[in-house]
Amino acid sequence: MKKLFIIGTGPGDARYVTPQASAAIAASSELVAYGLYLDLLGELCDGKTRHELPLGEEIERARLALDLAAGGRPTALISSGDIGIYAMATLVFELLDLQLQGRESSPGWLDVDLEVVPGISAMQAAASRMGAILGHDFCTISLSNLLTPWETIEKRLHACGQGDFVVSFYNPRSQKRDWQIAAARDILLDYRPPQTPVILGRQLTRADESIRVLELQQLDAQDVDMFTLVSVGNSESRHIENRGRHWVYTPRGYRKKL
Amino acid sequence: MKKLFIIGTGPGDARYVTPQASAAIAASSELVAYGLYLDLLGELCDGKTRHELPLGEEIERARLALDLAAGGRPTALISSGDIGIYAMATLVFELLDLQLQGRESSPGWLDVDLEVVPGISAMQAAASRMGAILGHDFCTISLSNLLTPWETIEKRLHACGQGDFVVSFYNPRSQKRDWQIAAARDILLDYRPPQTPVILGRQLTRADESIRVLELQQLDAQDVDMFTLVSVGNSESRHIENRGRHWVYTPRGYRKKL
Repeated sequence: MKKLFIIGTGPGDARYVTPQASAAIAASSELVAYGLYLDLLGELCDGKTRHELPLGEEIERARLALDLAAGGRPTALISSGDIGIYAMATLVFELLDLQLQGRESSPGWLDVDLEVVPGISAMQAAASRMGAILGHDFCTISLSNLLTPWETIEKRLHACGQGDFVVSFYNPRSQKRDWQIAAARDILLDYRPPQTPVILGRQLTRADESIRVLELQQLDAQDVDMFTLVSVGNSESRHIENRGRHWVYTPRGYRKKL
Repeated sequence: MKKLFIIGTGPGDARYVTPQASAAIAASSELVAYGLYLDLLGELCDGKTRHELPLGEEIERARLALDLAAGGRPTALISSGDIGIYAMATLVFELLDLQLQGRESSPGWLDVDLEVVPGISAMQAAASRMGAILGHDFCTISLSNLLTPWETIEKRLHACGQGDFVVSFYNPRSQKRDWQIAAARDILLDYRPPQTPVILGRQLTRADESIRVLELQQLDAQDVDMFTLVSVGNSESRHIENRGRHWVYTPRGYRKKL
């Protein structure tokens, strides 16, 4: 059986890689990924053929993974985090869909057995380091307007505000995009208090991890970069401190029973 | 150091339990959980003292875990899925918050070192089994109105519709609550096409797993129970079939580049 594993390996630290993901990598001879993700996996990748394509070449990575698998080599397409959340999995299915419609010329892709392996996403790593900000209804919004029109993103920011969802922002900033996070902050400030707690997690679980809490009104573009995950509480989220440790949690409504 | 691990063990199958979660369980002498979750973990729990409290006794479980840890026993409070998402973690921090305010009488809780260990949530397991429905902006809504007023849930359903978010419904139905899922469907039908793909995943990754795709207009209360995770696509999500396998994915917008 021709096989393509589509694998999320969690935020970085090997302790977050599930046994299912490790087994899928072990069963593959070809690894396709942005190189940094493979470096983080260490010895798991020993003896495998590495196909490293830079950021920006996502379509090429998905095609290459499908081609290698269709050629009979057990292949792993790897992303950090959850590969199903703002990552490569959806692109593989988009290519498969085009082939089914006859708009690609790679019929061999249709013979590949696809298996998606989920991973711990950045929002989960950030939330767990700082308490439980995802304890009640939440949403995720990518602030990258490279593939999504800003009007769509803006509509979702207003919906997030109206629905009082906790929100995690993926892709909050890049070298070429620096104004989106402040625009998002300003929209949310129309709906929730300026003191609403915000978690900034950078390089989560990696050697140079940093994580901190600030107020929504303090959030600024200079605080974030492309390695930062931003999670904003809802109107009920609370920031507490005990023995010098800071925690943010969103209550589910048990308080009336406590 | 007095220690309480707050651990999510994923949807059920041991292959989804992260090494971090396994290590935290190994380092604990006391396990506090709904019994079924411990049964799923198998030999990981051997030699530990099990404190099993039934569903509905969440507050008691959180208190017991804090008390055991404060008493000097390394303790693990365990949920399936991600314990930070609609689960026990937020309740521990709510109790800690009350103690900090002097509204509880357990000062020993403040000496406990808390460590939250995230896990693969049901929505991630469902999405990965069926493709990549979480490929673009999404939200989660609990349909349980035991702790959240229905008006709040309704407001979030409308916001989800307006923002065109993919949505995963947690707690879609229980023995006493049977009308919420149909009400949610009807609200979403005001915003997205009746053919919008829906994934129903039941007992995900467990021996009696079932998972299927249907259209939003077909979604009915009789299709779901308390073990079901319901994920509804956005207006762009697609259901495709290849060689008898069904996939649902939500495109990120690469199509214009393909």
